Amino acid sequence: MIERIAILGTGLLGASAGLALRAAGFQGSITGWNRGAEGAQTALRMGAIDSVATDPIAMARESQIILLCTPVHAILDWMEQLAGVVGPEQLLTDVGSTKAQITAAADRMFNRPGRAAFLPGHPMAGKERGGAALGDATLYRGAVWLFTDDPDWKRSPESAAMVAEWRGWVGKMGSRIIDINATRHDELVAWVSHLPQFVATALSAVLEDQVGDAPELRDVGGRALREMTRLGASPFSMWRDIAHTNAGAIQKTLLALEQRLTHIRENLRTPELREEFDKANRFRKE
Amino acid sequence: MIERIAILGTGLLGASAGLALRAAGFQGSITGWNRGAEGAQTALRMGAIDSVATDPIAMARESQIILLCTPVHAILDWMEQLAGVVGPEQLLTDVGSTKAQITAAADRMFNRPGRAAFLPGHPMAGKERGGAALGDATLYRGAVWLFTDDPDWKRSPESAAMVAEWRGWVGKMGSRIIDINATRHDELVAWVSHLPQFVATALSAVLEDQVGDAPELRDVGGRALREMTRLGASPFSMWRDIAHTNAGAIQKTLLALEQRLTHIRENLRTPELREEFDKANRFRKE
Repeated sequence: MIERIAILGTGLLGASAGLALRAAGFQGSITGWNRGAEGAQTALRMGAIDSVATDPIAMARESQIILLCTPVHAILDWMEQLAGVVGPEQLLTDVGSTKAQITAAADRMFNRPGRAAFLPGHPMAGKERGGAALGDATLYRGAVWLFTDDPDWKRSPESAAMVAEWRGWVGKMGSRIIDINATRHDELVAWVSHLPQFVATALSAVLEDQVGDAPELRDVGGRALREMTRLGASPFSMWRDIAHTNAGAIQKTLLALEQRLTHIRENLRTPELREEFDKANRFRKE
Repeated sequence: MIERIAILGTGLLGASAGLALRAAGFQGSITGWNRGAEGAQTALRMGAIDSVATDPIAMARESQIILLCTPVHAILDWMEQLAGVVGPEQLLTDVGSTKAQITAAADRMFNRPGRAAFLPGHPMAGKERGGAALGDATLYRGAVWLFTDDPDWKRSPESAAMVAEWRGWVGKMGSRIIDINATRHDELVAWVSHLPQFVATALSAVLEDQVGDAPELRDVGGRALREMTRLGASPFSMWRDIAHTNAGAIQKTLLALEQRLTHIRENLRTPELREEFDKANRFRKE
């Protein structure tokens, strides 16, 4: 029975996890630590955590579940730091946006006899702005929560039970679990998550150059423009790590989109344009 | 005083105009005609029009305001057909998405002594799907309604009064009027409206190729993906005319975005990426 959860990084995802666990009926303790102390205090005030740790290493040592809710590079750093500190009765899991490097690190440092378990996870939930203050008990409701567990990892019955219990809590928070291979995960999210983000960033940046000094002209674009550029507000701090740890897959998707835009540009007056609309319509069907 | 309005094309925009006029207190008659008879019957049932015309030419002849609510090529065709039928006591206006060709046609065939007035208009409102059944009395509320009237047109006092009254109804429907030069209009909407549409079409088409056969994988993208591809459902019938009548301006915007995406693709691991996010963040600030 999980009774002590530590949330390392009480930003949007971490604070929302604390709130969602409480909303789902979790009765045990939830301790939090955040690199910026203010974020932890905000999470505390909101009831996302019930105490703020001053020492993250000590916090991890005393918890059964350690939920890593930082950008990807920081998750990799924490995995290194915590590997020698935690033991076989503990489970680390994360919410990092790319999974190949994290899953490889989990294979290298965890999930072996005598060591802590590590369950690599990725809830497909977020907002275009981060921070504990936007934490939301319903953030994970209806979302897909991906796990890139490796079927070759041999876990002790105790570890396996803790993994199963955490997967149960993810379900209780309202998410639908999909298990997927880590490499396939990174390719898939490059298409359905990273590409849309970089497109929104590029579109917003181009428009900042064109109409940035004339705010009244943005109003002309209406709802469609607001929607297509909402992700332009996304923080670089998070996306830098995604770009660094999934560059190859992202480059492939960007190149495909560039070629598509070129094709459309060269066919604005030809029947080829209809085929692009037909294909796009099919994607949005039902 | 405007008492007889004709809506030529009772699709989404036409039906919504009828509903919005009624909601704003217009007491006169609203007659409608639609190329597909079913669309006119739907508009009638919804109360967007109070009678269906069988002969659009006769309908136009008997109305004070003729509101053209079709795609751009059809608007240009109707302008040709109606020019010899309507007289100086009548006002034609439209909701077409591009304005250079329509404004040039208005200059050629209308807005002269002894002829009907033509006020080229473009409400920045719509949905990703068309049709009378989606008509909405609030569609124009909070939207910008652009007019590309030419200050050189000399109108009779009667025509000027009718133009002023129609602008008043546009305000009562909840839209904010912006007057703009027709060429500048087409350049501006290429950036803030057409570019976002073609990006959504390209993104949806690319994703249809990649994950079209695996609907469960689209769920992984969540809200961000749904938003970035919503416009993928837009009908080709409307966008073909926009592409044809504004190809030059659209090509320029597409090329700018392609270059931006290439720059991002080549800088996923360099500090240049931060500048793109900073610029995009600025566009979405406040």
